[in-house]
Amino acid sequence: MIVVMKPDSSKEHADHVISLLDGMGFSSCLIESAERKVVEVLGIAGSFDNMGLENAPMVDKVLPEAGPLLAASRRPGEETFQVPLGARATVGGTKLAVIAGPCSVESRAQLLEIAAAVREAGAVALRGGAFKPRTSPYSFQGHGEKALEWLALAREETGLAVVTEVLSSAHVELVARYADVLQVGSRNMHHTPLLRAVGQQEKPVLLKRGWSATLEEFLLAAEYIMVEGNHNVILCERGIRTHETYVRNTLALAVVPEIKRVSQLPIIVDPSHGTGRNHLVTPMSNAAVACGADGLIIEVHGKPAEAWSDGEQSLDLGQFRLLMQGLRPFAAASGREG
Amino acid sequence: MIVVMKPDSSKEHADHVISLLDGMGFSSCLIESAERKVVEVLGIAGSFDNMGLENAPMVDKVLPEAGPLLAASRRPGEETFQVPLGARATVGGTKLAVIAGPCSVESRAQLLEIAAAVREAGAVALRGGAFKPRTSPYSFQGHGEKALEWLALAREETGLAVVTEVLSSAHVELVARYADVLQVGSRNMHHTPLLRAVGQQEKPVLLKRGWSATLEEFLLAAEYIMVEGNHNVILCERGIRTHETYVRNTLALAVVPEIKRVSQLPIIVDPSHGTGRNHLVTPMSNAAVACGADGLIIEVHGKPAEAWSDGEQSLDLGQFRLLMQGLRPFAAASGREG
Amino acid sequence: MIVVMKPDSSKEHADHVISLLDGMGFSSCLIESAERKVVEVLGIAGSFDNMGLENAPMVDKVLPEAGPLLAASRRPGEETFQVPLGARATVGGTKLAVIAGPCSVESRAQLLEIAAAVREAGAVALRGGAFKPRTSPYSFQGHGEKALEWLALAREETGLAVVTEVLSSAHVELVARYADVLQVGSRNMHHTPLLRAVGQQEKPVLLKRGWSATLEEFLLAAEYIMVEGNHNVILCERGIRTHETYVRNTLALAVVPEIKRVSQLPIIVDPSHGTGRNHLVTPMSNAAVACGADGLIIEVHGKPAEAWSDGEQSLDLGQFRLLMQGLRPFAAASGREG
Amino acid sequence: MIVVMKPDSSKEHADHVISLLDGMGFSSCLIESAERKVVEVLGIAGSFDNMGLENAPMVDKVLPEAGPLLAASRRPGEETFQVPLGARATVGGTKLAVIAGPCSVESRAQLLEIAAAVREAGAVALRGGAFKPRTSPYSFQGHGEKALEWLALAREETGLAVVTEVLSSAHVELVARYADVLQVGSRNMHHTPLLRAVGQQEKPVLLKRGWSATLEEFLLAAEYIMVEGNHNVILCERGIRTHETYVRNTLALAVVPEIKRVSQLPIIVDPSHGTGRNHLVTPMSNAAVACGADGLIIEVHGKPAEAWSDGEQSLDLGQFRLLMQGLRPFAAASGREG
Repeated sequence: MIVVMKPDSSKEHADHVISLLDGMGFSSCLIESAERKVVEVLGIAGSFDNMGLENAPMVDKVLPEAGPLLAASRRPGEETFQVPLGARATVGGTKLAVIAGPCSVESRAQLLEIAAAVREAGAVALRGGAFKPRTSPYSFQGHGEKALEWLALAREETGLAVVTEVLSSAHVELVARYADVLQVGSRNMHHTPLLRAVGQQEKPVLLKRGWSATLEEFLLAAEYIMVEGNHNVILCERGIRTHETYVRNTLALAVVPEIKRVSQLPIIVDPSHGTGRNHLVTPMSNAAVACGADGLIIEVHGKPAEAWSDGEQSLDLGQFRLLMQGLRPFAAASGREG
Repeated sequence: MIVVMKPDSSKEHADHVISLLDGMGFSSCLIESAERKVVEVLGIAGSFDNMGLENAPMVDKVLPEAGPLLAASRRPGEETFQVPLGARATVGGTKLAVIAGPCSVESRAQLLEIAAAVREAGAVALRGGAFKPRTSPYSFQGHGEKALEWLALAREETGLAVVTEVLSSAHVELVARYADVLQVGSRNMHHTPLLRAVGQQEKPVLLKRGWSATLEEFLLAAEYIMVEGNHNVILCERGIRTHETYVRNTLALAVVPEIKRVSQLPIIVDPSHGTGRNHLVTPMSNAAVACGADGLIIEVHGKPAEAWSDGEQSLDLGQFRLLMQGLRPFAAASGREG
Repeated sequence: MIVVMKPDSSKEHADHVISLLDGMGFSSCLIESAERKVVEVLGIAGSFDNMGLENAPMVDKVLPEAGPLLAASRRPGEETFQVPLGARATVGGTKLAVIAGPCSVESRAQLLEIAAAVREAGAVALRGGAFKPRTSPYSFQGHGEKALEWLALAREETGLAVVTEVLSSAHVELVARYADVLQVGSRNMHHTPLLRAVGQQEKPVLLKRGWSATLEEFLLAAEYIMVEGNHNVILCERGIRTHETYVRNTLALAVVPEIKRVSQLPIIVDPSHGTGRNHLVTPMSNAAVACGADGLIIEVHGKPAEAWSDGEQSLDLGQFRLLMQGLRPFAAASGREG
Repeated sequence: MIVVMKPDSSKEHADHVISLLDGMGFSSCLIESAERKVVEVLGIAGSFDNMGLENAPMVDKVLPEAGPLLAASRRPGEETFQVPLGARATVGGTKLAVIAGPCSVESRAQLLEIAAAVREAGAVALRGGAFKPRTSPYSFQGHGEKALEWLALAREETGLAVVTEVLSSAHVELVARYADVLQVGSRNMHHTPLLRAVGQQEKPVLLKRGWSATLEEFLLAAEYIMVEGNHNVILCERGIRTHETYVRNTLALAVVPEIKRVSQLPIIVDPSHGTGRNHLVTPMSNAAVACGADGLIIEVHGKPAEAWSDGEQSLDLGQFRLLMQGLRPFAAASGREG
């Protein structure tokens, strides 16, 4: 059971609720975040009786569980949030937002060539890994701050917003200095200290679904960010782990219309990780748009066969241009602007 | 290792190959179907040496494994097969084929009402279960032959082709007498006697993917049908079983473009079972068409809340009409005729 | 909702219930099996009101769902059923029952050699495939009746009971003529016509869990057999399909104690298919016994490297002998006789 | 491709290798950890040619991939590592090590009562969460340092080693000050900054498998810890996420003998999270020991029905005592000391 305190309640108000509960024989604890004070009643399962707590001073409401107070939940009649992608674009509005770029930032020249090409083809943001989460400690871990500098340079040259992953709470400030959007990757969706840390800074956050996360866990990960005060969260479906072997992951597109129904957060799709196969990226991009995705994030490389990581799923520059052209009628059919 | 005999080879030719192998110390066996004689060499793992067998009389070729001789495989430069859906429609050509109707045939009146409505909305075939594969023996198992008669009547009244499931080899002849297309359900995709039985009759077969089948198992199930002489197989993706709980199944749409790449068989999508949720059927239908599906099979019911089975995933008549209208721009974007 | 009729009720009694329901505006249908007449009320979801039907003649009880009347359910205080394995052994009692033998029956000599060896090592039954369910139609499909004859011969020579798979309803009578126990394989767990067919004959049935079946589906498959009058069902856990790749299947052993809790049917474990790896068979056999399995079914071959199927998971004769010796202390620790 | 430098090589030696590669047209990068310098050659897929690099100064060896140099790999003929659990016990030797305690440390009194009871029953270490990784930000997040103090007090009173989770790199130093073993939970198995951080301190690490991690990913997570210099890693299987619903997770016990085969790290099992059901904990503990587990970690609570978290899977004090007694014959059968 959850006792939600009013926004301007003090710690004393919450302590009063805790002492009332104590008098009734219940343990409880105060859970504070930048946005909310909540008292959770502990050690009771299932049955719900609000115990008259709604009359205590500065109590907002008493709920059997946290669900209805999620910042990530849809409020009836309201639109999807529009989250800024740098200064010139947003995701969540009527325009489809495409983010593209290499898996890893490999060199200044590589990045600038790709950035120019994806800009030309219609992307509004550039992705590129500076800090790479690798399965093996003996794999390339990213160029770090040097890569961030090149990303900033590419933004300057092309006007593209910069989206890049932050792996560690210790790097949040550094990455936020260069990037327009901080990405939290699938491997870290459950790492709550990082979620809180990106919630405590001001740049928008691109949150990828963990590859075996439920929908509820995905939304609660967004909630961890939002309770710290940052409501600019972009959700991203990138495939789940199943028994299928002809793909790297199973792209679970039904999550797109389901999120539209239950949440106001924008949702984009990553067909590159979501399939792991170059030849499936374009058809699954079309499908993602057709079922309502607000945008796409796509891996593009000048020479996929020589990419330092994820070459098998990267499009080359020409393929990406064709993808962007092919998307237009699907975007139009979905009621989106070219 | 597989020794493929020429089409007009005799049993003696195959026996000769078997005795040659015997002389070399290998066990082997003849595997015959209506379409092919194949000698499998047994008890050898991995390494491949054709042992000069290609010189034996009437041997077509010697292959390390069955893959390359699949009837279900795509031959370079050839089009997707067009499989007839009754007298007036096909699946696999440029026109999107939509099959619709109730999960279970409940009554004559129910069926005729739905048939007229889905015909009006643009469906080309009627689905409806006469024999139902139910998890519990205490659930309604279908009206059997009476339902088949009603389906035939609905065809007469509307011109729709009839698609209905056959559960058992013993019913193949009966169902084939009434239906235009015999459906093999997910639960039976691995039941090879039924696959052979539908391969030995002349009506086209709609083969649903088992809910945990790999792509290879799916295509080999089609092959079981095709080796018996029936090449009119329509594949159907209907969702796989995963950890997700907000849906009944995870619709794995990437299988659509992958099948287009590796097989000439047409592929349709079942967004009703593939999501299990009424509100997800329409967006996932759009997505299926956008990634290349040749058609859809959709559960429709006059009053979903009172359906005898699968009410939660059935569209009502008005919802289905809207779905069909909404599909048009996506079909057009995919290069398909209205 | 389910109206269960009394054992000696007639069709007229059930029709009376159906007409009462009709008068109240509800559709319903009679579901008959050898053991039970049940009237299912259709098109109602969730809410339950017995509508006074318990007063109609020959009605036994009215239940919201089928669960509580499962023949497969445990009745408080009763023991696990003991199912005969041929004339001399049972499964489900205090003695651990081990079934062993080759995946495929390859030849008379192969089978007799293995039978003698597994008998010597302590097995009570011989397994061996006469009809093989293969993923590819170009793989060896079994020696059929000839293999059944060899199995019968092996029984004569060793006294072992014979366990062999029946793939098709059409073969039930044939296989039952030779075998002591009819196996229904994982691929066929959902094929209800075969379940009914083995329920209508008298030999015990070994029912393997489908590789993505839920526990409930597994028990309801047993129920399909039992409602036809055959209560001699042995359940078998053989691994489920997951994301794991170092094994062929994930052996889900917790199903063993869970089945002990909810059902009186004996449960055995197949560590050969359940792991797919020779070196994991022995430790997982120990684990299966430790968590309460009533028996094991294990693939054994004279020369696993030359086996016609499943060589990677077969033990050789010496390994099987060691496994049997090693099992003893675990059986004893589990309160079972050597 | 990986060029492994000799232990006493300098950065200059590695730079020389990089410049040689550069001269041949290959990009490469230096990956340094406390234990190793490795040069990874980038943008080449598959084919392997060592390019004569083994002759460069201070190069140890050139490998096509990292596998063979894993610190976590088993060296032929060597024993499982024995990792200390505080001053008086180890895991990985002949004695079975049982860690027990509450999911969350709730209060001083609760903890001391449980500690005394599990000590009495035979446990060698106390578990208890001070920092809790919760799915919802509105759930109790742990008492933090206060709980660490109580854990240290419980150690003083009982002699039990203290095992507790560290959620964040920022807390590693704090937790290491109180705990004997630092636990990295399933949600964080992929969070490499935390793995590196616990690798850079001296306390042993209990690493839980991610609930959808492959075996390879699990071992490489251990490798991230080990390359930083800390070889005292205890692996823990705690169940994977599958389609099964009667359990919270599917306990995949075959990983135990597989890890014994490929790694020298000790492996323990968590049957509490691995099943999520109180009544399955004891049988699955027996099974874990029977297939070779070096130890167990079990949730125990004075009043499970009132536990602040995970009550459904916690044993009460009496149940834990019975579990410990029941384990003895299985431990003995596995060749372990009582």
